[in-house]
Amino acid sequence: MTANTLFGSDNHAGVHPNIMAAIAAANRGSAVAYGADSHTARAIEKFKENFGGNIDVYFVFNGTGANVIALKTLTQPFNAVICSEHAHINADECGAPENFLGCKLKTVHTADGKITVDDIGRQLEGRLDQHRVQPAVVSITQSTELGTIYTLAEIREIAAYCHGHGLYLHMDGARIANAAASLNVGLNDCSGALGVDLLSFGGTKNGLLLGEAVVCFNPELSKNTIFIRKQAMQLASKMRFIAAQFSALLTDDLWLENAAHANNMARLLAEQIKDIPDLAIIQPVQANAIFASLPRVAIDRLLKKYFFYIWNEEKNEVRWMTSFATSEEDIAKFAAAIHESCR
Amino acid sequence: MTANTLFGSDNHAGVHPNIMAAIAAANRGSAVAYGADSHTARAIEKFKENFGGNIDVYFVFNGTGANVIALKTLTQPFNAVICSEHAHINADECGAPENFLGCKLKTVHTADGKITVDDIGRQLEGRLDQHRVQPAVVSITQSTELGTIYTLAEIREIAAYCHGHGLYLHMDGARIANAAASLNVGLNDCSGALGVDLLSFGGTKNGLLLGEAVVCFNPELSKNTIFIRKQAMQLASKMRFIAAQFSALLTDDLWLENAAHANNMARLLAEQIKDIPDLAIIQPVQANAIFASLPRVAIDRLLKKYFFYIWNEEKNEVRWMTSFATSEEDIAKFAAAIHESCR
Amino acid sequence: MTANTLFGSDNHAGVHPNIMAAIAAANRGSAVAYGADSHTARAIEKFKENFGGNIDVYFVFNGTGANVIALKTLTQPFNAVICSEHAHINADECGAPENFLGCKLKTVHTADGKITVDDIGRQLEGRLDQHRVQPAVVSITQSTELGTIYTLAEIREIAAYCHGHGLYLHMDGARIANAAASLNVGLNDCSGALGVDLLSFGGTKNGLLLGEAVVCFNPELSKNTIFIRKQAMQLASKMRFIAAQFSALLTDDLWLENAAHANNMARLLAEQIKDIPDLAIIQPVQANAIFASLPRVAIDRLLKKYFFYIWNEEKNEVRWMTSFATSEEDIAKFAAAIHESCR
Amino acid sequence: MTANTLFGSDNHAGVHPNIMAAIAAANRGSAVAYGADSHTARAIEKFKENFGGNIDVYFVFNGTGANVIALKTLTQPFNAVICSEHAHINADECGAPENFLGCKLKTVHTADGKITVDDIGRQLEGRLDQHRVQPAVVSITQSTELGTIYTLAEIREIAAYCHGHGLYLHMDGARIANAAASLNVGLNDCSGALGVDLLSFGGTKNGLLLGEAVVCFNPELSKNTIFIRKQAMQLASKMRFIAAQFSALLTDDLWLENAAHANNMARLLAEQIKDIPDLAIIQPVQANAIFASLPRVAIDRLLKKYFFYIWNEEKNEVRWMTSFATSEEDIAKFAAAIHESCR
Repeated sequence: MTANTLFGSDNHAGVHPNIMAAIAAANRGSAVAYGADSHTARAIEKFKENFGGNIDVYFVFNGTGANVIALKTLTQPFNAVICSEHAHINADECGAPENFLGCKLKTVHTADGKITVDDIGRQLEGRLDQHRVQPAVVSITQSTELGTIYTLAEIREIAAYCHGHGLYLHMDGARIANAAASLNVGLNDCSGALGVDLLSFGGTKNGLLLGEAVVCFNPELSKNTIFIRKQAMQLASKMRFIAAQFSALLTDDLWLENAAHANNMARLLAEQIKDIPDLAIIQPVQANAIFASLPRVAIDRLLKKYFFYIWNEEKNEVRWMTSFATSEEDIAKFAAAIHESCR
Repeated sequence: MTANTLFGSDNHAGVHPNIMAAIAAANRGSAVAYGADSHTARAIEKFKENFGGNIDVYFVFNGTGANVIALKTLTQPFNAVICSEHAHINADECGAPENFLGCKLKTVHTADGKITVDDIGRQLEGRLDQHRVQPAVVSITQSTELGTIYTLAEIREIAAYCHGHGLYLHMDGARIANAAASLNVGLNDCSGALGVDLLSFGGTKNGLLLGEAVVCFNPELSKNTIFIRKQAMQLASKMRFIAAQFSALLTDDLWLENAAHANNMARLLAEQIKDIPDLAIIQPVQANAIFASLPRVAIDRLLKKYFFYIWNEEKNEVRWMTSFATSEEDIAKFAAAIHESCR
Repeated sequence: MTANTLFGSDNHAGVHPNIMAAIAAANRGSAVAYGADSHTARAIEKFKENFGGNIDVYFVFNGTGANVIALKTLTQPFNAVICSEHAHINADECGAPENFLGCKLKTVHTADGKITVDDIGRQLEGRLDQHRVQPAVVSITQSTELGTIYTLAEIREIAAYCHGHGLYLHMDGARIANAAASLNVGLNDCSGALGVDLLSFGGTKNGLLLGEAVVCFNPELSKNTIFIRKQAMQLASKMRFIAAQFSALLTDDLWLENAAHANNMARLLAEQIKDIPDLAIIQPVQANAIFASLPRVAIDRLLKKYFFYIWNEEKNEVRWMTSFATSEEDIAKFAAAIHESCR
Repeated sequence: MTANTLFGSDNHAGVHPNIMAAIAAANRGSAVAYGADSHTARAIEKFKENFGGNIDVYFVFNGTGANVIALKTLTQPFNAVICSEHAHINADECGAPENFLGCKLKTVHTADGKITVDDIGRQLEGRLDQHRVQPAVVSITQSTELGTIYTLAEIREIAAYCHGHGLYLHMDGARIANAAASLNVGLNDCSGALGVDLLSFGGTKNGLLLGEAVVCFNPELSKNTIFIRKQAMQLASKMRFIAAQFSALLTDDLWLENAAHANNMARLLAEQIKDIPDLAIIQPVQANAIFASLPRVAIDRLLKKYFFYIWNEEKNEVRWMTSFATSEEDIAKFAAAIHESCR
């Protein structure tokens, strides 16, 4: 028996049927490459419907690409990027930010993946000192890598602090849809409207085959982003197939349906396992991830049936994720397996 | 009326039906991300069937990514890459090679896109001189950016020269299928078997939605390529959907069918326009591109109906390309339009 | 009255008379540039007398250059360098390592500037994981940025651990002379003989006008270092004038005389101020630096007469440094001023 | 007998006595490091006397450092730098510009080392095309690497063209003193006053021990140059010793005396060898270099007594250089040796 991989990551899900249909529908005739096609124009319009008209949008392949292009748009190599130690840009991109930006990341220790204005302030020492890197951007992840969510007030406060201290605010929104669904607001309400300058907008984890977008809320900033994207090897030739997916995601609030469902499934799972004596849910379940600690023997038993990541080997902490493709039945079976493993 | 974009580039075509079917078929259930799935394993097997068992394969998003990752595998920043001035890495990648490799490209003037052993030799002056970049790789494109094709003997000679002079040989095979079809040999016969060390294997221009592969014929060289790929922002999470496309492309020689068809359509077009008095076909039509010069007024007339690129504004040279999706009827209509424009 | 700058840094001292005489003596006639001269050959011989014959030596301009060239010799961009958070490469080089190496620095919190084998071990998680940077080098500073010194046993243990875990060991020896003097051993005894792979050997802080050296204890590693040095913009044309300084520094143990004197002056100062009630010496005085905490009002009073750096504004911690040029009389006056400021 | 190295390069000369005296005079007491000292302030004043008050000056170690820092001040990685194929930045810096800037150099073939407005224009194709690097700077060398000199009118024309086309103009003035002396104008008259934006001002080749300066004629451009200098590993700690040399060079027009002398010696040598039948002087002798072609057998004979570089092995072209340290007697002896070698 092969282990079930569904709860290992929201990347383990396939493609949502509407997205697949949109790809198929885009496959008619020929179209100019590199974004000068009608599908791309239409997708950008969909973004403007959601984020307001004064934005620039750049479609790219993956989340690392989106983050690095967004940050390159805002930095020179002597700058620094302030972020959580858990940030994807710090922990999971094999040094792509340092390498492509030439910048140092100044990381902040966090218990829940969320950084604060005080954290940022402590990283600003040494400004104008030629021996020190010069912080230029704060990057926050929403929802965070630990499945938590910044409140609107928290982001607003960070944005105000950044802009008051000569810093830009980048949001890694690989899971912004999960955050918006959880906060019960629109996509712009939890990003651009709060003062975010550049957003990495996630598609892949929310039902796309492949595709992310860099959204810039101040087009003055992004006047060179097309060159940065190309030099970052993130310009797709048959762009229409990325664009068409985004159009579908932003049609009839599919983004919300998918994300809300994923969040609901995580909450359902939490509900069904929260009373297991030896198991502790160690982060608030606010989006589509559950972080739990349980005995190593239980982890090992469960791993025989389900593939998932041990987040912290020393502390026996694991991560389980849900997605648009997780069903209530999947949850019931997985919860049962957890119960059994912990017995 | 919108201009017909079909002849503008082989990137303007959509996705071949078999490829689309393979994507749909891969969309069942969940699968581990980043390449640890059965689709990826199967696709690598298909590559080994075509290129021999002793290879490493890395799937990436696009051609620029494939080229840069291949070259990074072979260079340090004080090295140089020798290539044609027309090479995609030199002319069309917005400096991605210089930026990601940190290297200089030493370019060679060519009339037909093909470089020779003599060209390479002239770039080797200054070896061991600490003031000079140190050539480490020769990069050739097959078929070339000008639609021409290296003979097997030419590549064999270049490979032998490279290996005799401490140089690696990289092949940009964004259109290697067109070359193999034209030469009437297998994929390995015109690459690894001749001494090519690393190959950028093209999928997108030959019917894929999106996907290229780096093929390494000496796994000793590529022991760090997985890290280079990730740091180059070219690691796909839902890898199965890239892999499944390649499996389809390499099944029942679809790669050959598509490429041979594209080549045939180019030859057919050349045949149907070769007698136009004011038009000159300026490069041998060996693959799926036609380079022609014709009066500016004819170009402008034709551009009203068809979208294509003026290759050289001064010399009134244009490029037309065919693909798997070009039909004989498309050719007939386009040839008629060219005739009409030149009248 | 201008503030006395002598205790601000060992960089504030001038040039030792023997060094100045060596520069003047080298200024006879013409000499081939870039290191192919007899002065450079002689200086390398002096290094071999001190470090053994199986080394490579590369003269460079400054400490940042030496560190970055040494680390570039040992890394590729997907690698990481493990070091103390206080390391000069992390705190004081404006991101030059990240920018030139393309690498992430993985920093370790330390109380005294010294990292341990356990610290290193905790940074090794994620090896072979393509999403993570791959540690390749540990960099330690001797004497440290906090004026402390690794024992020979500590370095030997770190070196053994590194080599047992596929890591190289780099030593930032901007003040290695102070360490050797303090440990009462030779230069090689506290570096190459213990398993250090590459050493940044400091000259400027020990009486040179300008000049540092990269010493490689395994010439196999450094076969490309001449190209790295040039590409790092650290190749001097009139090399003889850097080399001649090093020859003088390594003649009649001037390096030791200068460093031992500086260390003695630091101990003397510590002795003379250690009983001030409100003042605490917060790091062991093992080399030529004194870190102390004292009331802010006392700091401000002292700053009117003496220029020095406040190391930690929040904690009222300051750094005072001594050098070859500090006299007992300087110490007496400065100690008196500190006493007066604390009254 | 060892070969005489005097004519091999102007880098082969030692340090002018006035410069040496200035170094010795600066060696009194302590001084704050990194440029916050009175010597540095005084040297900057000297630059303002020569170049006007509205400049920024950054002292650095060497010419490669000056060029790369100047160009980094003006570019982002997707930009390109247009220069002669003979430019030091292209031919002699081991790829430091590509590596540190991340940029492509677009090189222009020149017969005499001088590029023209037409050359520049031909490199501007592809602007705003996201696949192409975007030229941002033109870099010219004055005097050129071939010993020739741009007229004031030529530079003025290039500057106007650059500024009319959204390009900056950088001058590699490693030998600007030789150019100013030859043109019989002041330093600013042949740089800033003509529209040069950033200047690499050479010291080492004109009598300094070591030291170059980046001069920015528009301080708005250079607001980040201090960070770029540090990140480029070009910030000297004991800055006073570089600054003091420049103060001496700019006192009583020592720069002019040295450069004019070097130029005169080159002209004298040319005069004394111009009638040798088998020898051809192949570039106008306008500064302190002589490029000549002579029979290989004569070259080999001469190399036994004198060290110099063969510029072009195929064409038997050699380069001889003069400096402030070349005497009329040196010229007479060298001319005699050339005559004898050609006999």
